[in-house]
This record gives sequence, C-alpha cells and structure tokens, in this order.
Amino acid sequence: MPDYAIESIATRDARFPLPDGAGKDALHTNSEYCLAVTLLNSRDGLCGTGIALTLGAGNRLVCEAIELLAKPLAKKTIEEVMCDFGRIWRRLADDPSLRWLGPHKGVIHLALASITNACFDLWAKSRKVPLWKLLIDLTPQQVVRLLDLSYLDEVLCEQEALNLVATNFSSRTERSAILEKGYPGYDTSVGWIAYDDERVRELTAQAIDRGFQAFKLKVGSPEHERDLRRAAILRGCIGDTGTLMFDANQSWGLPIALGICRSLAKFQPLWIEEPTHPDDIRAHARLAEEIAPVKIAAGEHIS
Amino acid sequence: MPDYAIESIATRDARFPLPDGAGKDALHTNSEYCLAVTLLNSRDGLCGTGIALTLGAGNRLVCEAIELLAKPLAKKTIEEVMCDFGRIWRRLADDPSLRWLGPHKGVIHLALASITNACFDLWAKSRKVPLWKLLIDLTPQQVVRLLDLSYLDEVLCEQEALNLVATNFSSRTERSAILEKGYPGYDTSVGWIAYDDERVRELTAQAIDRGFQAFKLKVGSPEHERDLRRAAILRGCIGDTGTLMFDANQSWGLPIALGICRSLAKFQPLWIEEPTHPDDIRAHARLAEEIAPVKIAAGEHIS
Repeated sequence: MPDYAIESIATRDARFPLPDGAGKDALHTNSEYCLAVTLLNSRDGLCGTGIALTLGAGNRLVCEAIELLAKPLAKKTIEEVMCDFGRIWRRLADDPSLRWLGPHKGVIHLALASITNACFDLWAKSRKVPLWKLLIDLTPQQVVRLLDLSYLDEVLCEQEALNLVATNFSSRTERSAILEKGYPGYDTSVGWIAYDDERVRELTAQAIDRGFQAFKLKVGSPEHERDLRRAAILRGCIGDTGTLMFDANQSWGLPIALGICRSLAKFQPLWIEEPTHPDDIRAHARLAEEIAPVKIAAGEHIS
Repeated sequence: MPDYAIESIATRDARFPLPDGAGKDALHTNSEYCLAVTLLNSRDGLCGTGIALTLGAGNRLVCEAIELLAKPLAKKTIEEVMCDFGRIWRRLADDPSLRWLGPHKGVIHLALASITNACFDLWAKSRKVPLWKLLIDLTPQQVVRLLDLSYLDEVLCEQEALNLVATNFSSRTERSAILEKGYPGYDTSVGWIAYDDERVRELTAQAIDRGFQAFKLKVGSPEHERDLRRAAILRGCIGDTGTLMFDANQSWGLPIALGICRSLAKFQPLWIEEPTHPDDIRAHARLAEEIAPVKIAAGEHIS
C-alpha cells in the first residue's frame, strides 16, 4: 500500500458569519462559527484536513497552537503515524515547551483535536477508502493502538480496552444496517436562545417535514419562565413520541440548576446538557441523581 | 485620590534560558522560563505589570490571549476596575468570542492570571502603597468585591465569604509579626530532576546556610528507586526537623502513584504534589486517603 509522507503542515483560520440569532446560546452570544483547520499536505498531493470549532476572535490562537504542536509530524509517513497513533498523540501532547499550556484542555485540547482529525483524514485518503470503512476494517489491536490511555489505568488498561473491542468484534455485521438506514441525527437549529416562540414553532415544523424526530433546545435564559415556556412549545410541536434535549451551556450555579432542572425534567427530555461549570463533576452527579431517569450530559468543554 | 486611566495595553513575551539542568521536572524537560507579561499603561505614566509563567514556545499564545482578553479594560480608570473587580473579571472571562477556548483553563487561565496581576499592580502603584499594604487596609466588603464567586454558590456564597473575612478581620494585627519576620519560603532549586545526587547535597547545604528550612524535591524519575534514593539523601541532609515536599508534576497513573507515594510517605514529607493528572480529583482523594497524614497537593494546573 502507498505510504504518503507529510511534506508540509499548514493551518487556516476560517470564519463564517451566521444569520441573525443563529448559533447563539445563553453564554456564547456572538454569531460567528470559526474553524481552526489543520492541513497536512503529503508529498504526493493529498491533503488531510481536520477542524476544531471555536466561536470568534480566539480562533487564531488555536491555529497557532496547531502549528506549534503538529511540527513533529513533518516528514513522517501517515502509516507510520497511524500504526502507533496513541503513543504519537501522547508525544505531541507532552511537548515540554507546550504542555504547561494545557495539559489536554482549552486551546491545546482544541488544537490537538484538529490535528487528530487531519491525521485520520489523510490516512483514509491515502488508503482511498472512506474513514468509516477504514475504521471498521481495523483489528481490535489496531483500534487500541490508536488510543492514548494514559491516566486511565485504574478504569481501563490496554488489555481491558482490547477485550472490550474484541468482545464486540463479531457483532459488527449486525450493526451494518446503519449503512443502509443512516445514523439518526438531532436538530439543534430549531431552538437557539435568541429565537422567539414563533420562530421555534416554524423551524420545528420544517425540521419535522425533513424527517427529524429529535430536537435540542437552548435554555439558560435570564428569566426561567422563558425556558419553561419554550420547552412546553417544543414538546407541544413534536408530540409525546419526539425526542427532546435541553442545553444550558454552563449557565447556572448548582442551587439554581437544581430548581430549573427539576422543572425542565417534567418535559421528559432525554438529557439536560452542561447545566453548570463543565469541570464540576460533583455538581453534575448531584443533578443527575436529582432528575433521574432524565440524564445530565457533559458538553464539549469537560477537561 | 488620583484615579489613573488605562491608556494602552501591551504584552511582552519574555524568555529566560536557564543554566543546565535547572527548572527541569519529570515532564517539563526544557530549560527555559518564559513570562507572558501584561503591561497596563496609564495616561499619567504609571505601568501596571502582571506575569504568568510558561515554559517555552507557547508563551506567545498566552501573550496573544492577553491582548484579546484585556481589551475591555482600555480607557477605564483603575479605581473603576478594582472597586468591582470580581464582576469585571467575570466579564473578561466570559467574552463570548473567547470563552469557548476555556472556560477558565489552559491558555485563557494563564492570560487571565497575568491580566489580574497587572490590575492589582497598577492599583497599588496608583495609590502609592505596596500591594500588601493596600490589601490589608481593605474592608471585608471591598475584599469580597474583588472575587468572582460564580459556580461556587453551594460552597461559598457572597454573604458567607463576607462573614469569613469579617470574622478574621479583628485578628489582623496579631498576624502583623510577619512584617518583621518575613514569610517563610521553601527552596525548590535544590532538587531539579536532572541533578545528580552530589549536586542535590551541595545545593541543599548552601540553602541551609542561607537559612532555608523547607525544600522541594522533583520526583517522577523513570526508575522509582532513583526517587527514593534522592528522597533519602535530601531527608538526610536536612535532618528530622527540616520540612520536605515532593513534586511529581503529573508523572503517574493512579496504580503506580499509589505504590510510589506509599514509599515516599516514609520520608515524612509535608505533601506530595501533582502525583497524577491535575483534574483527576478522585485519584487525588484516593491517594490522600492512602498516605494520610501526608497530604496530596494540587499544582498550578487544576481547572
């Protein structure tokens, strides 16, 4: 199989203004989606592309972090990188001149995510298969070698990870129906925080027409009644069989979160996401206990 | 009192190469101390200076984050900033175009720290008193208004913080002996990970001559026996009455940390610092339980 070498590494700070009100949640109130793009150019003309999403001015910091962190990938072949990706990822993340900025969180976390995506993309392109196809054809050993399991020893060592993948290996074909039916998605765009009630109703109706059965609503409005009213509207639009999720984007301290989550739980959501500071694990556990069987979801920001 | 306005905001990416072996720990093996410096220049010629330490190439990312985050301080007077600093800090940290890069962690965390230090420095300079003097003359209300207590509601609300400061207010004078005697420090420079045994002995003897009674040793060597040998040497040099601390700088997963911390506890350190991933609170709690009364210390990296 051809083994493409990474000839040069570049980034792109790509910014996309959003239509009025789109993309806004309780805390992130600007309307710009930004992508910190990693571009791994191979000697043979392929380009592995990876992205991480940010929301505005700070996007260039992630691009600069990518440029610093990805340097050790230069001149390596993509097969060399991917056959031992867990260890290589760990080495990138542990760069002694950059590790102090993380570890594994914030700007550095986002930059590593973009680099990781680009590596997988170049790998699939170099093998001339879609990434999903490449991944499902890996052996359990190859899957586990993609992962950095450091600091997880007491909950998942390499052998346990291997057993986990191996145990589920034989039932892969049973799950292949997904290739015919597709993977069910949910629509977040019906319920941005800035949308008025009428807009939520209209967009939900359109999404139902397009076949969506699951919907996410942004909550965390300054007035809690507004969250509850919008939740009632969306539940009304989608009926008892539709799936509903709420996302508070870290809006509340725990005491307030307890009250509002209890009220929101009455609308039978599948989960309530990021009710409070993403790293406050105890608060998440306390809330999950309080509103069970409704679940509490962590968001993108947990360290 | 004169109220100095912040006329311009600048940063400096200051880097200082260290002598051979100095500054190295188990994971941060480069020898360069870098400061991401915030400079708040007042209209009247004062300059508030703040720093955050990093270790190398990433320092410029912190400087750029400072430039983005500190913008809202421009043209404000320093008294205006400091009379409500908790809320102003929160507004800086919650900038909707930058918050996604944190929140409150990594590059953003370091940048906010540098900005915070610069604000306090300009405040003290504008009042023409040392910062310690300014701080001890604040009322409990003024102290609490310096703090952002968001997400802490369930453990410390504003009124509780106020009571805490107020309760200890009257005993301030009892603690003023520190102004005569100075604040006891410990010496970290005797035990960098790269130093050989002889170097540790020499530097410890010199530090004792200079009056130090407390010492920190870097641990986390690839061979655990080396950590134990160095610990024994340092304990031998400082005697039973000296204070000893170990710092592993996130070297170990939990199972290994349990073993080595039990062995290191025999040298009766005051604490063992950053034994594992800084955000793994459960692992820290488990280790603290295991080696009590020796304490486990979190380091600079906890979110």
